[in-house]
Amino acid sequence: MEVVQVLHMNGGIGETSYASNSSVQKKVISLTKPITEQAIVDLYHSTSPTSALCIADLGCSSGPNALLVVSELMEIVHKTCKKLAHRPPEFQVHLNDLPGNDFNTIFRFLPSFQEKMRKQLGLDFGPCYVTAVPGSFYGRLFQSKSLHFVHSSYSLMWLSQVPKVLETNKGNIYMGSTSPPSVLKAYYEQFQKDFSLFLKCRSEELVSGGRMVLTILGRKSDDPSSKEGCYIWELLATALNEMVSEGLIEEEMMDSFNIPQYTPSPTEVKREVEKEGSFIVDRLEVSSVEWSACGNNISPSNGFKDDGYNVAKCMRAVAEPLLASHFGEAIIDEVFRRYKEIITDRMAKEKTEFFNVTVSMIRK
Amino acid sequence: MEVVQVLHMNGGIGETSYASNSSVQKKVISLTKPITEQAIVDLYHSTSPTSALCIADLGCSSGPNALLVVSELMEIVHKTCKKLAHRPPEFQVHLNDLPGNDFNTIFRFLPSFQEKMRKQLGLDFGPCYVTAVPGSFYGRLFQSKSLHFVHSSYSLMWLSQVPKVLETNKGNIYMGSTSPPSVLKAYYEQFQKDFSLFLKCRSEELVSGGRMVLTILGRKSDDPSSKEGCYIWELLATALNEMVSEGLIEEEMMDSFNIPQYTPSPTEVKREVEKEGSFIVDRLEVSSVEWSACGNNISPSNGFKDDGYNVAKCMRAVAEPLLASHFGEAIIDEVFRRYKEIITDRMAKEKTEFFNVTVSMIRK
Repeated sequence: MEVVQVLHMNGGIGETSYASNSSVQKKVISLTKPITEQAIVDLYHSTSPTSALCIADLGCSSGPNALLVVSELMEIVHKTCKKLAHRPPEFQVHLNDLPGNDFNTIFRFLPSFQEKMRKQLGLDFGPCYVTAVPGSFYGRLFQSKSLHFVHSSYSLMWLSQVPKVLETNKGNIYMGSTSPPSVLKAYYEQFQKDFSLFLKCRSEELVSGGRMVLTILGRKSDDPSSKEGCYIWELLATALNEMVSEGLIEEEMMDSFNIPQYTPSPTEVKREVEKEGSFIVDRLEVSSVEWSACGNNISPSNGFKDDGYNVAKCMRAVAEPLLASHFGEAIIDEVFRRYKEIITDRMAKEKTEFFNVTVSMIRK
Repeated sequence: MEVVQVLHMNGGIGETSYASNSSVQKKVISLTKPITEQAIVDLYHSTSPTSALCIADLGCSSGPNALLVVSELMEIVHKTCKKLAHRPPEFQVHLNDLPGNDFNTIFRFLPSFQEKMRKQLGLDFGPCYVTAVPGSFYGRLFQSKSLHFVHSSYSLMWLSQVPKVLETNKGNIYMGSTSPPSVLKAYYEQFQKDFSLFLKCRSEELVSGGRMVLTILGRKSDDPSSKEGCYIWELLATALNEMVSEGLIEEEMMDSFNIPQYTPSPTEVKREVEKEGSFIVDRLEVSSVEWSACGNNISPSNGFKDDGYNVAKCMRAVAEPLLASHFGEAIIDEVFRRYKEIITDRMAKEKTEFFNVTVSMIRK
């Protein structure tokens, strides 16, 4: 499986689209907003961009979140300028994701987005030049020293490729408590390789003093197979294993499927940043968000039922292209029907959370 | 009708898509290649871009043509460098079109495009950073002085809006020999306004000594209603008028429809460039391409029949969104069935050509 070609959130704006099922990612953006805001305000104070202020959002996906962060960043810079009686800068905004991302849907919103920004911030807002930059962030995307600020939320847990495991990760599709140590090792090594390459590329693209704020789906614990990072995939594996035992999925197909993701701990993130050496860690924080944040409209009448439905839909918007590319389209509805049931059951019985590692850093 | 929102070539890669029906535009790109090549070679000799060489293709559309021009431009720069024993530059390529353009389809081709370029030009090619810039070129799209080279082919005949006509353009959907003089005036004024705004915006974005090569669907004659520029739309009007007379289209709908296009003469193009004042005209040329270039695979056995079919399909790929937005989807198939018959008949009886005005200019 070529991750670059297969991995993308579900496109469009329909029922199963990422655009309609990304409220947990939105919640995380709002949770980490104070860190992002502090970083860009510090950036504005410490550097004075002579031309436009260049911001890149990496792994922007499509839908309402794609423009959310950049609009917040521009707003806070604009307000900071007002306070200091500075003339607000021009903005150059780069939205990046893999070539399979649904950029068209973002572009449809652009004219109204620009209009809204002008209304909200006044006529001295902008101009704001928006570009889309398709490509893997595990490679160079921008000219040298062309960026002031890099943001990425809920993207860097995706690896550039499925880790090359030497043993079968029997019954699992991700790291888990029953995964052989060699599997955990392969996952961690892939993360190290990818994340350090990411840091190297960004270090070349950011100006000196430039800032980068990354929020990564992760874990608190230093145990890579801890439930904190793995549970959501473990439950998906449960659904798939059920279907294997009923003969609906071939065991071989299940054995050969692993999710190209790594949910790192803050320690692991910090270690790579320090090893790579181009950045100073300014802040490193862990936050959590309950799985129920996947839903916007929880109807109190049927309680947890909606939650399971929403979480499964959210995960489907994220993982459907990966699953469909490996197992085929035909099983998708059934997998997510079962997944929903399993999630609903777990959510009723235990505390279910996603953990987010946020690191704010400064280019030396 | 909001042209910015409605105008776009048919998306995707299917039967009626622009991607599958743009061979005439490809032919024009190849016809005008010597002018484009000379301009970029001159640019390379006269300026030495210290960072990346920045190229923008405006109105890139989707499909194979979207990356054709930029690949040719990079190739010739690369060869020029080799000849001079220079190290080839990095490239920053911006692909622009309106937000409704199908950028997704371009992005799908990007990984194989980059691969192909590396194979063709060797390992010292690149890096080449590609971005998409959605927005109207009748406004600022890029940071000041950020571009070295601007190219646009078969896009600038599209106006920013339908000209505000004071009299009904009875029986016509474009300028024609039976159009009232006030209609011709409104069309010309809209062209002047749009084209001078285009020149002003680009003059701000191009570096001094930067180059711009524009090819515009136009005419040789100074008569705005001459057949050279209008005939293709006149025949579409014939099909629509037939349907009006049969009660399939309301007369009022026909009366209120005008195509937001202007096919200028070389004199008109030159006049605006000189009036705006930021550019020196280096070359100004007219070329022509037969309507039959719309088809790739003309089967000799049924002669002109295929040609009419291909021309109608080519025009459908270009005009369907405009027509569907005004008249509704329901009539589209029937309009183009009749259009095809009419075109086939005309092509069998007379010489039918598109005329292209190409202007190559230098930013003062």
